[in-house]
Amino acid sequence: MKRLAAAAIALGLSSCAATPSATISTPPAAAPVQPPATMQWLYGSGEAAAISVQAYHAMRDHVLDAARSRPLESMILTEGSTLASPRFEACGTKPLAVVLDVDETALLNLGYEYDESTKGRSYDQAIWDNWERTGADAVGPVPGAVTALNAMREAGVKIIFNSNRKAENAAFTEMAINQTGLGPARHRDTLYLQGDVGSGSAKDGRRARIASRFCVIAMAGDQLGDFSDLFNAKTLSVPDRRRASGSGIFAQKWGAGWFMLPNPVYGPGLRGSFDDIFPADKRWSDPAKEN
Amino acid sequence: MKRLAAAAIALGLSSCAATPSATISTPPAAAPVQPPATMQWLYGSGEAAAISVQAYHAMRDHVLDAARSRPLESMILTEGSTLASPRFEACGTKPLAVVLDVDETALLNLGYEYDESTKGRSYDQAIWDNWERTGADAVGPVPGAVTALNAMREAGVKIIFNSNRKAENAAFTEMAINQTGLGPARHRDTLYLQGDVGSGSAKDGRRARIASRFCVIAMAGDQLGDFSDLFNAKTLSVPDRRRASGSGIFAQKWGAGWFMLPNPVYGPGLRGSFDDIFPADKRWSDPAKEN
Repeated sequence: MKRLAAAAIALGLSSCAATPSATISTPPAAAPVQPPATMQWLYGSGEAAAISVQAYHAMRDHVLDAARSRPLESMILTEGSTLASPRFEACGTKPLAVVLDVDETALLNLGYEYDESTKGRSYDQAIWDNWERTGADAVGPVPGAVTALNAMREAGVKIIFNSNRKAENAAFTEMAINQTGLGPARHRDTLYLQGDVGSGSAKDGRRARIASRFCVIAMAGDQLGDFSDLFNAKTLSVPDRRRASGSGIFAQKWGAGWFMLPNPVYGPGLRGSFDDIFPADKRWSDPAKEN
Repeated sequence: MKRLAAAAIALGLSSCAATPSATISTPPAAAPVQPPATMQWLYGSGEAAAISVQAYHAMRDHVLDAARSRPLESMILTEGSTLASPRFEACGTKPLAVVLDVDETALLNLGYEYDESTKGRSYDQAIWDNWERTGADAVGPVPGAVTALNAMREAGVKIIFNSNRKAENAAFTEMAINQTGLGPARHRDTLYLQGDVGSGSAKDGRRARIASRFCVIAMAGDQLGDFSDLFNAKTLSVPDRRRASGSGIFAQKWGAGWFMLPNPVYGPGLRGSFDDIFPADKRWSDPAKEN
C-alpha cells in the first residue's frame, strides 16, 4: 500500500495544473527488486535441490530393482481408466523404458524465468516459443537428474522424454537436453513432443503410443498431467484433485513408479481460492486480536 | 498496474475540490483475493501432496531396511563436523530412532497460514506463539506422514520430534501432534523443543542429546537446519548453500537417510537476489524483443 499512497500524493498535487490525461499516464512498471519466493525456492534453495536429488535417487533405485525383476504391469494407465478405477497397461515381453517430462523435471528453465521475473512479466506463449528455439544454452539440469538417468540407461532401460514443447522446435529441444548431459534425446525415438500424436497439450496419446512398444517401469514429472490427463479434468475441484493424488489408489504410486519433482513456479497446481486451499474446519484467528 | 491507475484517476479528479489530506488518506489495505502461489501449491495442490507421500514412502522403506540390517553410522553429524568434512555419530548398540521436525514436516499449519494469508500479513512471532497455544485443532497431517510413522514404530523404531516450537508450550504441541494421529509425542521423550537443550533455534544441541542415546537411522525436515545447523551459517552464500546440499557428500544423503519435505511458504530457502538465483551464464532475453 505504501507505493500506492505515494503515487496518489504525487498525482493529487499536480492534477489542478496539468491535464488529467497527462497526469494519469501509466507510470513505467517498477522493476522487481528480487525474484518471487517460488523461484528463490525452486532455483536457489538447497531445500528444493535436496527434494530433486531425493526424487531421482528413489527413481533410480526403483528402476534398477524393476529392471531385475520385470513387473507385469506398466506405470501407464490404460485408455479406459478413470480416477476411481484406474487400470495399467500390461508389460508382456516389451523392452523396458522410463518416461519423463522435460521442463522442471529434467531441465531447469533458468534463462526464461530470469527474463520473466526480472521484467515482472507473467507467462507469454510467444516468448516461450522463442525460448524453445534460442534458449538451449541457458538451461540447467535438475539436481540429480544426469547421474540417475545415466544409471538407468546403464541398466538397459530406455529413457524417453514426453514434453509439451512443440514438435516443430524438436531440433532445439534435442540440443537443450543433449547439451545439458541428459540425453540422448532423439525426436520420435527418445523424445515425444506436442503435435507428435494428435494435437494439444494432453499427453495420454503419446503415453499410449510409448506403452504400445515399451514396458514403462517409471514415470517422472513436475505436474500431475505428466502421469495422466485424468488429473486435468475441468470438472475436478482443487480439493478433489489433491485428494485424488494424495490418498487412495494413486498415493501408492508416489515413490513406487511415479516420481514427482517440485515446481511451485507454474502449472495447474497454482490455483484455488481460500476456500479451496484451507478446509473449513482448519481455520484460526489469533484470540488476542479478536474484536 | 491496473489498480494503481484506477486509484490515480479517482484521486486526480477529486483533488481540486477537496483538501489534499482528505483525498490522499491511506486507503484501507485491500484484502488479498486468493492465497499466495506458495500456499496454493503446498496446501492445495496434488503435486505437493505427491511429493510429501513420496518422501514418506522413501523414508519408510529406508527405515524398515535399516532396522533389519543395523547401520554402523547414525544420520546425525558429530560436533566437530564441517560442510567440507562431515562425520557421523557411531551407532554402537544403541536403540534405533528416527528424528523429524514438526511444522510443515509432520504437521501442516493450515489455521495459522489461513489467518496470515487472508489478512495479508507476514510472519509475526507473537501471533505464532498464540497459535502454538490455541491452534491444535486447526492443523492437518502432512500427506503420507501418519501411515509411515506408524509403520516405522511397528518395526521397533522410536519416532522423536525435534521442533523449534517453544518448550513452555510443550503440552499444546503434544496435543496438536497426538490429535492429528502422528504421535505419541511426549515432551523430552519423543518431543524435543526450543529451550530443552541450550537456547535459540539451533537444533544441533538437541540432535547431539538424542544421538547420545539412540542410533538415528533417518531424519526428516522441510529446512536444511532440520539436518544440520552448518547449513544456516551466516557466511554461506545462497548459491554455496544450494551447492552444499545438492551436490557432493550431502547429496548422497537425500532419500538415503535424510528426507526433505516441500515447503516454499517460509524459511531460509526463500532468499536471494537475481544474481544469487540465476547463474550469470544462464540468462536469456527474447531476441524478438531486443532493442
